[in-house]
Amino acid sequence: MSDLVEQLRAAIGAEAVRTEPEALAAHRRDTWVLSELRDLEGARFAKPAVVVEPADAQQVAAVLRLARLTKTPVVPFGGGSGVCGGVLPPEGAIVLATRRMDGLVALDDRDLKATFRAGTNGLAAERRVSEAGLTIGHWPQSIELSTVGGWVATRAAGQYSTAYGSIEDVLLALEAVLPDGTIVRTRETPRAAAGPDLRQVFLGSEGTLGVVTEVTFSLRAKPDESRGRAFHFATFGAGLEAIRLVMRAGWRPPVVRLYDAHESKRTFGEYTPEGRHLLLLLHEGPEPAVEAEIAGVTQICDAAGGAETGVGAVDHWLEHRNRVPGFRGFLEKGIVLDTIEVAATWSRVGALYEGVVASLRQVPDLLAASAHSSHSYRSGTNLYFTFAVRPKDRAKMGEIYEDCWRRTMEATLAAGGGVAHHHGIGRVRRGALAGELGAGGIALLRTLKRALDPDGLLNPGVLLPDA
Amino acid sequence: MSDLVEQLRAAIGAEAVRTEPEALAAHRRDTWVLSELRDLEGARFAKPAVVVEPADAQQVAAVLRLARLTKTPVVPFGGGSGVCGGVLPPEGAIVLATRRMDGLVALDDRDLKATFRAGTNGLAAERRVSEAGLTIGHWPQSIELSTVGGWVATRAAGQYSTAYGSIEDVLLALEAVLPDGTIVRTRETPRAAAGPDLRQVFLGSEGTLGVVTEVTFSLRAKPDESRGRAFHFATFGAGLEAIRLVMRAGWRPPVVRLYDAHESKRTFGEYTPEGRHLLLLLHEGPEPAVEAEIAGVTQICDAAGGAETGVGAVDHWLEHRNRVPGFRGFLEKGIVLDTIEVAATWSRVGALYEGVVASLRQVPDLLAASAHSSHSYRSGTNLYFTFAVRPKDRAKMGEIYEDCWRRTMEATLAAGGGVAHHHGIGRVRRGALAGELGAGGIALLRTLKRALDPDGLLNPGVLLPDA
Repeated sequence: MSDLVEQLRAAIGAEAVRTEPEALAAHRRDTWVLSELRDLEGARFAKPAVVVEPADAQQVAAVLRLARLTKTPVVPFGGGSGVCGGVLPPEGAIVLATRRMDGLVALDDRDLKATFRAGTNGLAAERRVSEAGLTIGHWPQSIELSTVGGWVATRAAGQYSTAYGSIEDVLLALEAVLPDGTIVRTRETPRAAAGPDLRQVFLGSEGTLGVVTEVTFSLRAKPDESRGRAFHFATFGAGLEAIRLVMRAGWRPPVVRLYDAHESKRTFGEYTPEGRHLLLLLHEGPEPAVEAEIAGVTQICDAAGGAETGVGAVDHWLEHRNRVPGFRGFLEKGIVLDTIEVAATWSRVGALYEGVVASLRQVPDLLAASAHSSHSYRSGTNLYFTFAVRPKDRAKMGEIYEDCWRRTMEATLAAGGGVAHHHGIGRVRRGALAGELGAGGIALLRTLKRALDPDGLLNPGVLLPDA
Repeated sequence: MSDLVEQLRAAIGAEAVRTEPEALAAHRRDTWVLSELRDLEGARFAKPAVVVEPADAQQVAAVLRLARLTKTPVVPFGGGSGVCGGVLPPEGAIVLATRRMDGLVALDDRDLKATFRAGTNGLAAERRVSEAGLTIGHWPQSIELSTVGGWVATRAAGQYSTAYGSIEDVLLALEAVLPDGTIVRTRETPRAAAGPDLRQVFLGSEGTLGVVTEVTFSLRAKPDESRGRAFHFATFGAGLEAIRLVMRAGWRPPVVRLYDAHESKRTFGEYTPEGRHLLLLLHEGPEPAVEAEIAGVTQICDAAGGAETGVGAVDHWLEHRNRVPGFRGFLEKGIVLDTIEVAATWSRVGALYEGVVASLRQVPDLLAASAHSSHSYRSGTNLYFTFAVRPKDRAKMGEIYEDCWRRTMEATLAAGGGVAHHHGIGRVRRGALAGELGAGGIALLRTLKRALDPDGLLNPGVLLPDA
């Protein structure tokens, strides 16, 4: 193994190759609840052989070529903020950390584009373009923790996606390295019909098909106007119906969030009467467009039985929206919990909500099963579930965690929903991927994987179920 | 060969397997100008062995399995309206016509989605959803001639794309068959982070990676309001600048078309003073949103030096927009001509326009070299060039045609543009694809092709340059 380390040092420089225990320990896992739990329980994690920090695509290529030569697994590591177990390096693996690929490469105000190295922190990237009066328009809850390359690799969606799109909609171009060391750089053109869109090989690949090294975003000018509004509804279904009609009419508030009565009480109790379901809206754009949108959306919400309430709830959400919940404290108290985001078309989403909640309620010692909708489309919306259980037997927390996930995935598939809206597959959803893609889709994905990574070295155990 | 025909008959029924000379002749080519010219010159085209008309994905799979078994090339055939030479079956090939896969499978007003079989005519599909008060929002010039499956396979863009997106933006799900007969059906969910987006393997594949058999569109309600506007500008650059600022401000008129002075005079002479550059706009949406947009866009056009003119030009365009030019008549008169659509970011598009026009002007006996912009984005726009040459020596028409294309591709790449905005690659742009994708991109695409179609049987000679 030290041969490998020596070769890596020769290839990319000794300062970029780390083997000290602290470095290895810091890259054993992402923030998946099950990894947190195992950590708390004192379980032993597999130990990677080395953490490399290449500075550019050429160095990434050198690492990947050495990995192939020596048949060593490689696990790409961005911010480590993933919540699906996408990072859990096997014994002896190379962890490829992107942190030295940091910062802005180019910003073009005229073309509204900015290129960042893949390891750039998300909030740092947004702040950099913000100084120029622009925005990426992609604001995941994890923005302070995640990297721009991670956004692409996981197919992320941000809190403003209903108007500004998900990561695939703001990604103008990228540079990535294939498992054999080939560097791919897509052309910076607003749109092309030049064969399949090669960016899509990497969007959602979760480190299994290549390593993203640079991303170019299509930016927006900051909006002139940004105005919050809030309504509450008698039923979750009535709120969903209002959102459906807003989408159908063609209005696009960047933020459209509907909380069920449980979450409305838990997080916005001050702003929502007991038992009501809170809808938060943020309207952005040129002032007259915002005026027109607010009038149109208000009319729809009124007709759907919504009662307008003050914008305090929106302000509260804006203040707290990037607070990523620390699950560790709950686990220490014997409470196992997680969030699970899925999606469905409008005609299926009501049954999906009922089905998941009903199945979770069968879990003994359940404390909570709730959801909100936070990303909407003409055809449907997502649901973001939260579950919490305090089992009598603390030794069963892991088992109960897996049971809650299995129930949610099964109920989602049974209702015709999609199993993953924006967190990705990782390890936690591997078992559900066949239900999502079907046998044909799995066969296609497996063919792509085998063609690009015949030895299965890139992030093994993630995304694709075992053959 | 008759063995193959017998096997095909046994697999999908005798009525779906055609070998009569008329059927073979009708599938020798698409509407590529160079094929038209060769036809006119009496050149002999290669003769496919058989035309098959499978009725569903299972029959398509049977055909593809037989093709693989017998190592027979397969050329998918939709409407035959392609203009890049994507259809030119080699001697002895199977032509897989999609026409029996016809009609609506399902329409859902609540989910705003419609599923059509891939061979459904585009206008028939749009009319079907229109009866329900809905629209696909995809309106290519070829809508009367093309198929919905062809839209996907070529990565088409329609005339309303600036607001409603290109085909990849309105495609909710699809069913397709891989070269080995595997049927892939993607999930009908509004958005997913479940690995790479498998629809993208087929979008733009031009029949080389699989056969699309069914498509599900994400529909829109028809807009309440639809209002035209027109301005003219002193320079093409001033008009482009106005469009850039409209996009930057966040306004999204579905139709934004800027014609250079040559085209303004040629097509809209009645509405445009000599030497001015005409901008056509169509605003759609709820009435107050349209009002706000018109006010905002007018302000930008005024400030950019635009002079408003009557909407007669917009009405004229709306009336004639689906008239596909018949190139045959020109060819018969000894005039060789074509249209070439490319794209670039805003900072490059001016130089691209100048570069292409300057290069075309070096062609002897040039009659016209002009362009318009018809699909715009925050980051840039497309340019749709037209060239026409009447060479002294009619025998040189083919050679001059290829020279004009080569010049346009080279000048586009030199200016940093993308070589294909929405017609695809086919045969006419194969030589430019390496410039578009780079060596790494070509290597990636070739790896995908080899993995899915190791014998190179699907639409050989199209898209990928020879190894």
